[in-house]
Amino acid sequence: MSRTTHITPVILSGGAGTRLWPLSRGDRPKQLIALAGNETMLQATARRAARGEMFAAPLVVAGGDHADMIEEQLAVAGAAPAALIVEPCARGTAPAIALAALEAGEQAMLLAMPSDHVIADEEAFRAAMEAALPLADEDWLVTFGVAPERAETGYGYIERGAPLGRGVFQVERFTEKPDLATAEAYVAGGRHEWNAGIFLFRAGAYLRALEEYAPEILVAARSAMEAAERRGARVAPGREALAGLDSRSIDHAVMEKAARVAVAPVAMGWSDIGSWDALHALGPRDADGNLIAGDALAVDSRGCLIRSDGPVVVALGVSDLIIVATERAVLVVPRGESQRVKEALDALIARGKEE
Amino acid sequence: MSRTTHITPVILSGGAGTRLWPLSRGDRPKQLIALAGNETMLQATARRAARGEMFAAPLVVAGGDHADMIEEQLAVAGAAPAALIVEPCARGTAPAIALAALEAGEQAMLLAMPSDHVIADEEAFRAAMEAALPLADEDWLVTFGVAPERAETGYGYIERGAPLGRGVFQVERFTEKPDLATAEAYVAGGRHEWNAGIFLFRAGAYLRALEEYAPEILVAARSAMEAAERRGARVAPGREALAGLDSRSIDHAVMEKAARVAVAPVAMGWSDIGSWDALHALGPRDADGNLIAGDALAVDSRGCLIRSDGPVVVALGVSDLIIVATERAVLVVPRGESQRVKEALDALIARGKEE
Repeated sequence: MSRTTHITPVILSGGAGTRLWPLSRGDRPKQLIALAGNETMLQATARRAARGEMFAAPLVVAGGDHADMIEEQLAVAGAAPAALIVEPCARGTAPAIALAALEAGEQAMLLAMPSDHVIADEEAFRAAMEAALPLADEDWLVTFGVAPERAETGYGYIERGAPLGRGVFQVERFTEKPDLATAEAYVAGGRHEWNAGIFLFRAGAYLRALEEYAPEILVAARSAMEAAERRGARVAPGREALAGLDSRSIDHAVMEKAARVAVAPVAMGWSDIGSWDALHALGPRDADGNLIAGDALAVDSRGCLIRSDGPVVVALGVSDLIIVATERAVLVVPRGESQRVKEALDALIARGKEE
Repeated sequence: MSRTTHITPVILSGGAGTRLWPLSRGDRPKQLIALAGNETMLQATARRAARGEMFAAPLVVAGGDHADMIEEQLAVAGAAPAALIVEPCARGTAPAIALAALEAGEQAMLLAMPSDHVIADEEAFRAAMEAALPLADEDWLVTFGVAPERAETGYGYIERGAPLGRGVFQVERFTEKPDLATAEAYVAGGRHEWNAGIFLFRAGAYLRALEEYAPEILVAARSAMEAAERRGARVAPGREALAGLDSRSIDHAVMEKAARVAVAPVAMGWSDIGSWDALHALGPRDADGNLIAGDALAVDSRGCLIRSDGPVVVALGVSDLIIVATERAVLVVPRGESQRVKEALDALIARGKEE
């Protein structure tokens, strides 16, 4: 099998999470917002794997509601996609990556990654990819692991097995969302990594694994791509075949089951910014521990995250609050409790104030 | 001297306080906002002295920026003014009431009152007026006193002297904004009332007192009214004479000096809503002690004032906060510290964000 010269980034932009409500909403999900710094998460993701010596132009998989915004943002970032695959319905990462793999062709080396993660140390990320590439060339499915910083119960964990080369290990076991005691044992044991949701593999290797472990996904994806309508870079797969699928993650459909699965542990300053607290932890914070973004002001206040994309916000004499404002909504919640955002949304939905 | 049959309300709407920022601002002061209940403070003030057996149509004194809003609100309340005196410049209550007294004529019995106070017990207010009227008919200047609830240092205090009749006393002394120890002694002593800024007197009695104690105000007011331009109910006094005056309160110019000054103490559920904390104290509050107004929601939150005239506000898991939102600004400050609002405004002004 030939050595890979170019990697094709597959940017997964299908999510529309509400964990950063009120800033992220259905019509403007987290990856399309400038959360950390001046570029959006999508732009940062594209720039991280920008076309050049190492990477080809990216494939992007996204929902139709966001396609225009995605094209605009990638144009601004100078990272026009080779194809923007517009999912007719969201069915999780396993079908999404299957669509991209079929578009790219069996020989393509794919780097599949979410569009809404922060990676502070991009050198470390590239070094890990280079370490993983020889295995991917031998048709291993490689995932990237992040050393767990805390006993997070919301993530997947990967247990390292035998070393396969410098910086790459066979995967012993995947565990999705362990209970707290298990997560604590994993953190203490030192043999587990967080599953960062970033994967390197040859398209053909992934498609063959699908054929073995989740053939219905492969069949549906093939059928959808055969029925695809194309206009410019946009590819609109057929709805019918995909609509019949259950939603499946690549972890659940393939990685937890396949034999040749490897993990490349990497310390790269990774965060999925899964909450306002995570964003506050990421910084930068001022001398009083406040993270201020947008049209906001802290007066005699400490340890706050204060952000506005709408009316000017003034926090006066308060501590350890998260205050986020848009033109449509304002959230005030204590720091450390931002995972409760869903309660705010549920209360609004109960009042009929939010879709 | 003839017994008064009708009282002419003089509604003073000249203020543009910022103590309830961000809701109250220069272009929409407190009295033009529905703060407590469905009517604005101005409408509640007009309704409290509505034309009928006891009252004539009101005179309103206001700044030109608010004249349109005032006319609209009074029309809605069915309380069209006999005259809307548009001050060419704000010079305090002494000149403002002088303009109204000249407009009303010497024989008119005036009830001068701010447009932005709450009076919960209107029966008590009317009873106090009826007790005060015989004295006002004898050319006493009568003020209404409110039993002090706390050692407030921001108010004026009135010391009761000899009784002049049922429920009316000669004023022994006015004290403006005492220090805390003095205020505490007043509250403990039981001989002092808060000066509610509401006055009952014959126009001629007030004008004669001005002539004696602040003749420059009378001269300027006469000159301004002689130069007044009239269009419909609007009266626009001449600017020149008034512009030369210093700003003076009626207390400072007249009440503290005149001989025939009486006080009618009255327990009428009075509040000047001088801060967000005062509004929270006024209620109504839900079972968790929250005062919610406008498009706002408290989830697992206690003891908060949450108000929005703009984006929907959700307070989640917080206690004892004041959260006020408009389309232009959001303020978050602990309950008990709302007198610090000016610090928020100063910080914004320093940033050039607020006029």
